[in-house]
Amino acid sequence: MMETLRTLQRRPLVKLGDGRFLAVECHSVAFPDGKVVEDWGWVITPDYINVVAMTVEGSLICFRQAKYAVQGLTLSIPGGYIEAGEEPLAAAQRELLEESGYVADHWQALGSYVVDGNRGAGTAHLFVATDARWQQPIDADDLEEQELLLLSRSAAEEALQAGEFKVLAWAAAVALAFRRLDTQQPAHSSSTAVDGI
Amino acid sequence: MMETLRTLQRRPLVKLGDGRFLAVECHSVAFPDGKVVEDWGWVITPDYINVVAMTVEGSLICFRQAKYAVQGLTLSIPGGYIEAGEEPLAAAQRELLEESGYVADHWQALGSYVVDGNRGAGTAHLFVATDARWQQPIDADDLEEQELLLLSRSAAEEALQAGEFKVLAWAAAVALAFRRLDTQQPAHSSSTAVDGI
Repeated sequence: MMETLRTLQRRPLVKLGDGRFLAVECHSVAFPDGKVVEDWGWVITPDYINVVAMTVEGSLICFRQAKYAVQGLTLSIPGGYIEAGEEPLAAAQRELLEESGYVADHWQALGSYVVDGNRGAGTAHLFVATDARWQQPIDADDLEEQELLLLSRSAAEEALQAGEFKVLAWAAAVALAFRRLDTQQPAHSSSTAVDGI
Repeated sequence: MMETLRTLQRRPLVKLGDGRFLAVECHSVAFPDGKVVEDWGWVITPDYINVVAMTVEGSLICFRQAKYAVQGLTLSIPGGYIEAGEEPLAAAQRELLEESGYVADHWQALGSYVVDGNRGAGTAHLFVATDARWQQPIDADDLEEQELLLLSRSAAEEALQAGEFKVLAWAAAVALAFRRLDTQQPAHSSSTAVDGI
């Protein structure tokens, strides 16, 4: 029976502003064999969602934008922090609408993943939404400028393989979503062929 | 022409121990529209690699293990921090051998992804390796106990879809690797059928 690690003590080290976006703690961590690590760094950042949304026409809703931690520009997908008391799915639906102006009929969870297996750094909740339709103008409060793009499935696949989604959660979400959609739509290739006529 | 964000100033805030595994800075960041954010948190953690390694028999080399930031146990894949002066590919080959005892003939890069698009937190370099063969006993220096598992491709697909790789980089790597392998092996399903005879 494999045992998990235990927190013996946690000590706040630093926070930025009110700590809502970044705080760091120092933990004492006990291992199953009795070993204790006294200076284990723990990062507290907000949980977030990302959405892989496909339009009724089968295109991926994405953006070209700058991000502070990224060299040059990157492709991105709708996403953002979960607000206090908000469910991850509700956050995903809110962000899709705010950032792209689209609503989607069908939603599936792609899983919830801890961002740093050692230090925490929040949880990423990933979703895929299909049959998305345009509803209203964009109403985003993001600091960065975003250019909305509708990429065909094949163009999105190429961009994914080329590493153009340069942030880990975005590449994860797109790859997981496309696998999920392929599993559920064995007739996908034939329907693509029909689209091409 | 979309512009990127600029660092005006960086100020160290805190580090754990010698700062090799975690340090935090406060940046002043200038946006293209002239706006400046003075308290932008920046997280410095080591760059790392993860490897999706498939044996000559077509099984995924993975582990069941505990991680401090994960509830319960999780499936994982070989990976670790890049050492000073080490190339990402060399780190991937070293970690695969140390953690699993396997070597692989064929390696492909799956891309390099910043872990936090806003705060940095290092870069994840992801790889897929095929035709892996057992070479030597495991020689890992990891703190956590790891149980080596060889999962069939279909079992690994199921585990991926079920969210059993609970850390973001591991799910990203496995999903990206399986998409890459599918793209390159259109005859994959028929060769699987042959294996099943």
